[in-house]
Parts: sequence; structure tokens; C-alpha cells
Amino acid sequence: MRTNRQGLLIILSGPSGSGKDTVLNELATLVDELEISVSLTTRNRRAWEKEGVHYYFVSREDFESRLAHGEILEYTTYNGNYYGTPKTRIDGWLAQGKTVILKIEVEGAAHIRALYPQCVSVFLMPPSLQVLAQRLVGRESENSAEIERRLAIARVELSHAGEYDYIVPNDILDYAVSDFRAIVRAERQRTCRKAYMIQQVLDSTG
Amino acid sequence: MRTNRQGLLIILSGPSGSGKDTVLNELATLVDELEISVSLTTRNRRAWEKEGVHYYFVSREDFESRLAHGEILEYTTYNGNYYGTPKTRIDGWLAQGKTVILKIEVEGAAHIRALYPQCVSVFLMPPSLQVLAQRLVGRESENSAEIERRLAIARVELSHAGEYDYIVPNDILDYAVSDFRAIVRAERQRTCRKAYMIQQVLDSTG
Repeated sequence: MRTNRQGLLIILSGPSGSGKDTVLNELATLVDELEISVSLTTRNRRAWEKEGVHYYFVSREDFESRLAHGEILEYTTYNGNYYGTPKTRIDGWLAQGKTVILKIEVEGAAHIRALYPQCVSVFLMPPSLQVLAQRLVGRESENSAEIERRLAIARVELSHAGEYDYIVPNDILDYAVSDFRAIVRAERQRTCRKAYMIQQVLDSTG
Repeated sequence: MRTNRQGLLIILSGPSGSGKDTVLNELATLVDELEISVSLTTRNRRAWEKEGVHYYFVSREDFESRLAHGEILEYTTYNGNYYGTPKTRIDGWLAQGKTVILKIEVEGAAHIRALYPQCVSVFLMPPSLQVLAQRLVGRESENSAEIERRLAIARVELSHAGEYDYIVPNDILDYAVSDFRAIVRAERQRTCRKAYMIQQVLDSTG
């Protein structure tokens, strides 16, 4: 009964400090057939970040070469650095019927929606801007000017949250993970992904 | 943070024998703030059916009186009997922010969608028509002519499954219940029901 499976592409956005990586790390241990697409960036790695988990950290030359060879699905620049989504593996995963999660900025999300109209988008919502600021302070790499700048960006990002299919509050991590897990499970049952079953069952009669 | 909550109306359809009541009974023990709207019918109660669980069994006179008083949201006739959805409590439950599940035939589902455009609809899919027939045989009240008739109706109902938002296969009960539970949890996070959070968080800054 596992024929004609359609993959599921999920966009995840949310302000810096909303907990995207933490939620995704938990989710990866709980959901089967899940692939997390890790972005490329040319910015410096922060002390707490892991290569291939938070980003693939590449040189400017490497990024521009991939761009020239059509290997970048979409990209943006932020604070003078490139951030891009590697195209290669996403389509392959979807063709295999897998669920692919793409962590992406608000602007990039709009591009992906245009490229993959059946994708599902989730906005991870901090409980308040105060809590967001506290979380950013907790990261050793951020100074107060940088935190102010990130909060200003967060306000802009929040103003786009209404464009997403789902809003998941991340106050208590376990709840956010359970919400996200439910969204994956529910979206796999969407009629656009399960329509093949109708004919299968109709054809099952003797 | 629990202000401005919007209720969630879920329509559940599926052929006779697809397991709607069994799934709903399980779900009711697992999901909070859930109300299951039980239909009224004028047909005879079957031996295994419980008043107020499967239906409210009422007389023809009672049904027609409620109809005349505007207490029936929608109704249909089937096999010479009335089947109707009592209007009174649904709107109250939704205003309280509750999740309301309405078990309803395919035809009635179309009426409810028109009345409540933000409702969510789920089609419970038997694994095959053979399994459906076996389940119907297991019910003491069904004879073979009745089973044939129900299978013919099931084929028509199946042909409408594509109109639903979700298709939940009911092969293994636990999976179907978990799928349905995930749909409830996911749909509660839909942006149309969580949009109030955006302004709440934006206003949280000092």
C-alpha cells in the first residue's frame, strides 16, 4: 500500500533565538523518513554551531561557484554574507516520498513557496520579544548592539508570520516539538498526498 | 496567552463500517477540549448502538418539530429515515474555543462546509471493500442484501473522498487514532486560528 507516495516539503522559519535548531534536533530523533536540509553560509561559525548541523560553512568562492553551476535553489545575503539552500538533494528526497524540512529566512520562504506550491510552512513563535532577547544574550557570540539589531529583524519577521500555514509557539520545548510532529503526521494524510488511496480501495472490489 | 481562541470544527465521514465510532471513542479519551456532536435519527436503534453515543434516536414527530423550530443544522433522509445535525450546541462550543467533531454523511458534509468555511474535513478510509464487507457481516443487524446495498453506497462515498482535507486510512485502529489526533493538534496551530499571537508577541516589547 506504499505506492505513489508523495514527499512532503516543510519550510521552517522563525526569528533568531526562536529555537529552530533545538526543535529540529528533537524532531529528527522522533520522526521517520525525515531529512533536514542544511543551508550553506559564508559567515563565520559561532562557537556553539556545528558544521553540517546548523550550516555548512563555506568560503565565498565556493558559494559563488555553486551558484554559477545552478546548485543553489535560492539564496539571500544578510550582514554581508551569503545564505543559500542546496538544490541537489531536496528533489531526490521528495521523489523518494520523504519529508524534507528546510530552515529558511522569511524572504527565502516566499521563493520556496513559489517553486514548491504544495509545500507546508511553519513559523516558530517565541513567547515574547523579552524572552527572545534573553535567549540571544545567552549565546556567547552576541553583543548588545547585535542583539538590538536582531530584535529589530525579529519584528520584521514576525510581521510576516501570517503568511505561514502554521504558527507553533515555542515557550515549552516539548510542546513545540509535539506540535511540529503532529503537523508532519497530519500533513502526510493530506488528500493531495493520499488521493492515490481512493482508486486503490475502489479497485479492491471483486 | 489563552485569549482570542478560535474553535475548530472537524467533519468526519467514511463508509458504514469504516470505523468512525470506534475511532471517535478512542479519540475522546485522548484529546482535551473535544466535543463530539451526536446526530439525531428516526431509524431504529441496532442492538450494538448506544443512545447518545452513536445517535440520539428520536421519533419522526420529534424530528419534524425540531426541524420546524430551526434546531436542525442540516439533515438528510436515507432509507426512509431522517438523519440530522442538532444546531444548538455546536456554535456554543466553537465560541468557547473547543474542538467539535461532527460525524456526517458525504452529502451533509458539503452543506456544513458551506456553512462553516473554516471547518476541516476528514475521510476515514477502509483498507479495501473486502474488509469493509467483512466488518459489516460482523454486525448482527446486517443481512446480505443490506450489505450489498451498503457497499454500493460506500463506492459512491469513496468517489467523494477527494473533496476532504485529509484521508485517514483505518487499517490498524491505533494508527488511525494517532493520525486523527495529529490532525486535531496540527489544525489547532493553523495560522487562521493562531494569528492573534503575532500581535501579542509584537506588543510584548518594552
